[in-house]
Amino acid sequence: MIPEAELREARAYALERLHALGIVLAPEERGRIEVADFGLGRLRETGLQLLTYVNTDRYCAKELVLFPGQTCPEHRHPPFDGMPGKEETFRCRSGVVHLYVEGEPTAQPTCTPPEGTYTVFHELVLRPGEQHTIPPDTLHWFQAGPDGAVVSEFSTASRDELDVFSDPRVVRVPGGGSAPRPPRPTMQL
Amino acid sequence: MIPEAELREARAYALERLHALGIVLAPEERGRIEVADFGLGRLRETGLQLLTYVNTDRYCAKELVLFPGQTCPEHRHPPFDGMPGKEETFRCRSGVVHLYVEGEPTAQPTCTPPEGTYTVFHELVLRPGEQHTIPPDTLHWFQAGPDGAVVSEFSTASRDELDVFSDPRVVRVPGGGSAPRPPRPTMQL
Repeated sequence: MIPEAELREARAYALERLHALGIVLAPEERGRIEVADFGLGRLRETGLQLLTYVNTDRYCAKELVLFPGQTCPEHRHPPFDGMPGKEETFRCRSGVVHLYVEGEPTAQPTCTPPEGTYTVFHELVLRPGEQHTIPPDTLHWFQAGPDGAVVSEFSTASRDELDVFSDPRVVRVPGGGSAPRPPRPTMQL
Repeated sequence: MIPEAELREARAYALERLHALGIVLAPEERGRIEVADFGLGRLRETGLQLLTYVNTDRYCAKELVLFPGQTCPEHRHPPFDGMPGKEETFRCRSGVVHLYVEGEPTAQPTCTPPEGTYTVFHELVLRPGEQHTIPPDTLHWFQAGPDGAVVSEFSTASRDELDVFSDPRVVRVPGGGSAPRPPRPTMQL
């Protein structure tokens, strides 16, 4: 469990970053910003703040907010329901995000991953207005630059609880130190 | 064909509205803002400016920009490739958008549609931070308020050329008075 004070702080940070970008949230949305520490208990180092706008059976849209230097640990999105697994596009809105994907390892990657299991080191640097699409079931991780980052994620249906992490210690449990799950995915008014 | 001056003006307006919202575009994106007059030759009345961020076989994300009072005419997204047709979520970012969908007609709708064929009048008013998801193959149209509007659209794969419009005069041809189509949908960097 993330300590209540840390949770509150992380949500306030995410709200402030989104507000600074002129992104308006509905009152209901402000109360359900999710904070994930992936069960490692070192949120500022390995963690993520996120808001899911919509997640139907077919597509999903989220905002991801990262603290300076915060890392979302290496994972992939496996097939489910007879579909190829989640395909996702990260679009940087503010700050800088360093994205590591499968492929030729970058000779001198910008980021050092936190302690844990990291195996892919092909680096892509996304600045505001830049985006990258990650094929289903391929490994990736990302780390924010020194000013943090806000990243829009567009994707097929999201089932976070199915994500496969390279580090066996990682737990991505809905509600485990997280905000309540979003309500019914469709028809949010 | 939309006259070159009008096209230029519409693109400049869209760029300015997105910029005012703090939305950063890649140089390549600035050059491919699409302007649609739906073949009616009255862009400010019936038309739409849009930028497609990504459109894979499975999902799509766009920004829609509307002039004050501008209407996107009534249409539906029919099934294709054995799938149920496009499902889409409109999220208002700035201004106000009046969305009309199938269902009980609103007694005194805010908007008067332009001359043409309009058959659904269940009104939803979307202000910044509010969104609505439209089921596949159902009729809808929308009109911006007096200050125009910017709307994020999250959806399944988009195939605009398959849209079925209630007004048989409407033509939604890619390139017909429009900016060049976006490049390959995936891996835009």
